[in-house]
Amino acid sequence: MKKIAVLGYGVVGSGTVEILYNHKESIEKKIGESYEVKYILDLRDFPDSPYADKFTKSFDDIVNDKEVDIVVEVLGGVKFAYPYVKASLEAGKSVVTSNKELVAAYGAELLKIAREKDVNFFFEASVGGGIPIIRPLNQCLSANKIDEIAGILNGTTNFILTKMIKEGMGFDEALKIAQDLGYAEKDPTADVEGHDTCRKICILSALAFGKHVYPDNIHTEGITKITLEDVKYCESIGSVIKLIGYASEKDGKVTIMTCPAVIDGDSQLAGVNDVFNAILVRGDATGDVVFYGKGAGKLPTASAVVSDVIIAAKEKSTTRMMSWEDSEQNFIVPESEISNSFYVRANASKADVEKLFGNVRYLSRENAPSGEVAFITDVINEKTFAEKCSNIDVIGSIRVMNY
Amino acid sequence: MKKIAVLGYGVVGSGTVEILYNHKESIEKKIGESYEVKYILDLRDFPDSPYADKFTKSFDDIVNDKEVDIVVEVLGGVKFAYPYVKASLEAGKSVVTSNKELVAAYGAELLKIAREKDVNFFFEASVGGGIPIIRPLNQCLSANKIDEIAGILNGTTNFILTKMIKEGMGFDEALKIAQDLGYAEKDPTADVEGHDTCRKICILSALAFGKHVYPDNIHTEGITKITLEDVKYCESIGSVIKLIGYASEKDGKVTIMTCPAVIDGDSQLAGVNDVFNAILVRGDATGDVVFYGKGAGKLPTASAVVSDVIIAAKEKSTTRMMSWEDSEQNFIVPESEISNSFYVRANASKADVEKLFGNVRYLSRENAPSGEVAFITDVINEKTFAEKCSNIDVIGSIRVMNY
Repeated sequence: MKKIAVLGYGVVGSGTVEILYNHKESIEKKIGESYEVKYILDLRDFPDSPYADKFTKSFDDIVNDKEVDIVVEVLGGVKFAYPYVKASLEAGKSVVTSNKELVAAYGAELLKIAREKDVNFFFEASVGGGIPIIRPLNQCLSANKIDEIAGILNGTTNFILTKMIKEGMGFDEALKIAQDLGYAEKDPTADVEGHDTCRKICILSALAFGKHVYPDNIHTEGITKITLEDVKYCESIGSVIKLIGYASEKDGKVTIMTCPAVIDGDSQLAGVNDVFNAILVRGDATGDVVFYGKGAGKLPTASAVVSDVIIAAKEKSTTRMMSWEDSEQNFIVPESEISNSFYVRANASKADVEKLFGNVRYLSRENAPSGEVAFITDVINEKTFAEKCSNIDVIGSIRVMNY
Repeated sequence: MKKIAVLGYGVVGSGTVEILYNHKESIEKKIGESYEVKYILDLRDFPDSPYADKFTKSFDDIVNDKEVDIVVEVLGGVKFAYPYVKASLEAGKSVVTSNKELVAAYGAELLKIAREKDVNFFFEASVGGGIPIIRPLNQCLSANKIDEIAGILNGTTNFILTKMIKEGMGFDEALKIAQDLGYAEKDPTADVEGHDTCRKICILSALAFGKHVYPDNIHTEGITKITLEDVKYCESIGSVIKLIGYASEKDGKVTIMTCPAVIDGDSQLAGVNDVFNAILVRGDATGDVVFYGKGAGKLPTASAVVSDVIIAAKEKSTTRMMSWEDSEQNFIVPESEISNSFYVRANASKADVEKLFGNVRYLSRENAPSGEVAFITDVINEKTFAEKCSNIDVIGSIRVMNY
């Protein structure tokens, strides 16, 4: 019989316990063995919970109990999660987590400990919530050389952008609705400034290209500067604005960034609306493959956690596929050298624009004030683009991407 | 060192060998062991092939060679594939196949032999080509109760329907182009009559619901009766027509069918165009998850085959998850009891229509002849629908689905 401990009884933790109990019979059939949730770690009291006898406030109870095979970490943050997960792995227990902050910060180290202890460290739920992406990327697409990954990885910002695009709502109003609906936190910084997306694309990049990318090393830009005027200009050419995390690899160098992007309306990512997420993986053999679904929420995320628990319970030793290495960050292409084409909105004459950028594609919107111009440049690197922009009165700019 | 034999050197077979050689280093790293393609079985001669020394015309060479660990079957059809795969499994070799006809006809039996011999029988490439679906369905969504699966599973018919929808092209002309481009075979029956889709939804249903479904037992309807008039009527309400394989389960009963369906333009399946495939999986915890990509083609399919080879090389014993049982087909809901809402095009008066179907939603198109009417019914079962239709002059009808 497998013994499981769940660290944290918040939204995802309670969902995980719920699924482990409600689907016990079918899950045990899949594992080929019975199991029990032996501990639930939480500092709060849950005297009325049907699982009241499982609760403990002491992590030591869990880490010192040799019977515990699998530890599920759904605490969030890194303050407790990191030492608890590390100690669990070192004690020879497999760990399953939904914690993207933890994986993005300490993934390489924790995977290394798991390998050394011949146990597993799984984190399917850390990216894309209920969307299967980590394992498909590692197993099903393993015969490919992955060239590129691009994803709508944050439901909150996608909800806000959808309100702006579909209903012409301003950013502040859309954010307020997202908060009222519980999609956005009171302090929405991690979502709207792109940090959440950044952590997730770091994890996907590490998996696809084999080297840990630390979130602090990549350009991260949120959606707070996107205006309804930008939305309208893009609409005039059938495009939409999405917050994209992307990573590509060529000759051992990784280009990686989190930023809003103008993408074609026919793209598979353009039709991803509301709180949904989608991840596009471009492989040399498969071409584009897209995974779509709910990127957050209690049961979707918990179901991804439990699917990892099932595999951890079945696997006798560490999974060689699911791994990457820590290394110096010199394989990351410096931001200044990254090239894209850009959408630009500026107060400038067309003559000035063309003198700077050469041939551009002009966009239009209703009721644009005279003197305002919006256009799309050719592909140009970040440094050159910034230099050129310093010569005109740029109101805003967004990268244009080919997904 | 793992030894591999590839049965069949056609499109997928040559792609498989190509990937096994071109990505040898990265694949061996994933397996944790070196490998060699020891045999390629084909009745034809390939004297100029770089792998000329691997070819054999005798399956006995392979099945009797104890060194061969993994047999890749990419012959197609069942005449040779079935006895060869069966014999390989019985000889204690793992088998990887892309052959949907084989899996749909003999999957339960072959999985059983694999279990008994403690080897693996994998078939990721049999559905969705390069799209990861079999393994995600079995592993990543394993904490869910799968309620429903619906897919655009055949690229040829989706290409034809896309031409009809986007370019107003007739069926015959679109089929001709598909044939010229190599997407459709000279005899396109298996594609356009829905047999290919039927085999694939049978496999997905068996995986999701645990019981083998024989293709002969399900209603299978192709796209040959779809007209441009139908396309136009559906366009007037923002809907499109797609060839859908779907299967749902409730209280142990499975509803399964292959047919053209009218689906909402906002659906994730509606935007799947040209030769692309997509599979929507509706789980009780995850909600809708969609997998999108190239459903056919040399390298996408071969990459799925090779990903299975990698896992077969790593797994020491049979995978308990990947399995279903043979059984009497009495768990399948009879077609007459299946309910849907229907799009109908008829020569009839609105009074007659409403007398028969009650409140309906009327559709319009330009230049419709007087006396022609098109409408969408409420949800109604197949038997009642057929009875009602016998009372008016129906030109055509298509099921309306909620994806």
